[in-house]
Amino acid sequence: MKHNFNSGPSVLPKEVLDQAAQALLDFNGIGLSIAEVGHRSPWFVPVMEEARALVKELMQLRDDYEVLFLQGGATAQFMQIPMNLLDNGQSAAYCDDGVWGSKAAKEASLFGTANVVASSKDKNYTYINKQFNIGTENKYLHLTSNNTVEGTQWFSLPDTTVPIVADMSSDIFSREMDFNKFSLIYAGAQKNMGAAGVTVVIVKKDFLQNIQRPIPSIMDYRKHIEAGSLMNTPPVIAVYIALLTLRWIKKEGGLKEMERRSIQKSTLLYNTIDSLPIFSTYVAKEDRSRMNAVYFINDEALQNKFLETCKANDMVGVKGYRTVGGIRVSMYNALALESVEAICSLMKDFANKNG
Amino acid sequence: MKHNFNSGPSVLPKEVLDQAAQALLDFNGIGLSIAEVGHRSPWFVPVMEEARALVKELMQLRDDYEVLFLQGGATAQFMQIPMNLLDNGQSAAYCDDGVWGSKAAKEASLFGTANVVASSKDKNYTYINKQFNIGTENKYLHLTSNNTVEGTQWFSLPDTTVPIVADMSSDIFSREMDFNKFSLIYAGAQKNMGAAGVTVVIVKKDFLQNIQRPIPSIMDYRKHIEAGSLMNTPPVIAVYIALLTLRWIKKEGGLKEMERRSIQKSTLLYNTIDSLPIFSTYVAKEDRSRMNAVYFINDEALQNKFLETCKANDMVGVKGYRTVGGIRVSMYNALALESVEAICSLMKDFANKNG
Repeated sequence: MKHNFNSGPSVLPKEVLDQAAQALLDFNGIGLSIAEVGHRSPWFVPVMEEARALVKELMQLRDDYEVLFLQGGATAQFMQIPMNLLDNGQSAAYCDDGVWGSKAAKEASLFGTANVVASSKDKNYTYINKQFNIGTENKYLHLTSNNTVEGTQWFSLPDTTVPIVADMSSDIFSREMDFNKFSLIYAGAQKNMGAAGVTVVIVKKDFLQNIQRPIPSIMDYRKHIEAGSLMNTPPVIAVYIALLTLRWIKKEGGLKEMERRSIQKSTLLYNTIDSLPIFSTYVAKEDRSRMNAVYFINDEALQNKFLETCKANDMVGVKGYRTVGGIRVSMYNALALESVEAICSLMKDFANKNG
Repeated sequence: MKHNFNSGPSVLPKEVLDQAAQALLDFNGIGLSIAEVGHRSPWFVPVMEEARALVKELMQLRDDYEVLFLQGGATAQFMQIPMNLLDNGQSAAYCDDGVWGSKAAKEASLFGTANVVASSKDKNYTYINKQFNIGTENKYLHLTSNNTVEGTQWFSLPDTTVPIVADMSSDIFSREMDFNKFSLIYAGAQKNMGAAGVTVVIVKKDFLQNIQRPIPSIMDYRKHIEAGSLMNTPPVIAVYIALLTLRWIKKEGGLKEMERRSIQKSTLLYNTIDSLPIFSTYVAKEDRSRMNAVYFINDEALQNKFLETCKANDMVGVKGYRTVGGIRVSMYNALALESVEAICSLMKDFANKNG
């Protein structure tokens, strides 16, 4: 068995993969693959409907939210959000706490003014800048709830009346929270909720107002809502894997249980890092991500040796992001505690031999 | 065994589904699912590279073409093409020969002038209007090479110096043609080249010129080309299934063989329709699609009975498109000749009993 610490695409529950493989061969015993049936057929429509409903149920969202399964990843949302929400001459506030939030602000600037109201760039994005003011002229405040690359995470929400828009690509469904406080939430599926190729968008209906800019159909949230997320052919396999993953989350105990496991796994890993002097993390303690632990081996000469040792022990995806370097261990929902125990044990052993 | 005449998502080769299911469980014996590995890993990059290269090889495209695997379906291309190619105040020519071409023109009108230079709307889109002039002020001419809904297909190209852009969603890889005559070709994968969730875009490099409009990253063809179609996380499973399908097409004999089969299947079906007085097709004979045969049962009272008879004989996807009605039989690459023989035999039998 491989220990899969990939940052995304990443580990999926084995039973989800088994069910998905079966559905590729024969979906629910109908004699056709899930990939071979019409998206408006009585076979696929219930898949889409159940997936949309499960998102609302797991997040305990009120009736005034709509759930869409779209294509294009979070990167498409970087443009789709301001295209739908920022009219010409309007502005939005952006928190610049990492690579992805920074890209989101850049795309928004093509549609209006993107005010960067907070940044942690001064310290290489190793913390979440929570001290800032947001003018009420801003149509929304955009933040990245978990920074996959830098290993930081938001644990409280800014106190503001400005509607909050959150990129939850790397921590959706990993914890309880009052999600009704958000006006729009989006996430690529390939970390905590399935395979790459589908993006969930959760939007409060009254957040979508008429704007002057003409919006192409495929980009128009309201058209997707009207069509029940079946405006054009959806990525059927990816939607089905998302459904299987959502069912798995529910069966395992929902977000409460995902959070418990995530605290358990990340606490174990961070305690191990803190206890071994050969490793360091620069991330502010209170902002340490439970999803992605970013850390370094102090003696750079040992970096490759450590990565090789991981590889030799069937551990994959441990190398840090290309612009950050070091080590990154991702601990999404589907990662077993045993995998974190295994790398902690390897780290201790490595420290003993190389310390 | 089911006979799958779905118009898309549609039938896939059994060996492709078997291989895809295996890769979902364990990709190439690496102990991880294709859905669990990084898209920039040495496991996935060769998948993308081989798929891009196979498209060029099968279509015999020259080196000045780039192949991208993107998200959003043909509907996203309806906006992405004019966004990249039509600068403010510029115009493009559109052939309105069906539902999809008409939608493409509508989206283009958000970015410039969409001149509808030919339309077959006067006869309910039952033919291809090939008599038209295209002013050279148009940046490109857009046509839909096969109209899935209406059952018409282009068998010769317009004689023009204006660059041709074609939506080949429903007939790509089904015939030989000099594809180097096109400046841009696009197609959703879910008919002739795989599962829903990925769209191939083939573009002649010098067709992409600087324009004044700022283009969001995810929409910018040139950024996708620079990134080798890995700008953001691609829909890994759908790309892999496309690769498996492309390999299958090559192994079976390439486009020459796909065309031979397609002529054989469609000739058999149209001959059967023509020979049975209870059925009619309104599509002009010279424009009859080899991919989608759209026809009617003359006595409307028999329509449901016919559909029920098909269902009882394990034939699915025979019902016509919602706005057209009647019968539609789709005969994509992966549909076996046996399936067409089966429905022809059923049609004869039905005519005998109800004629």
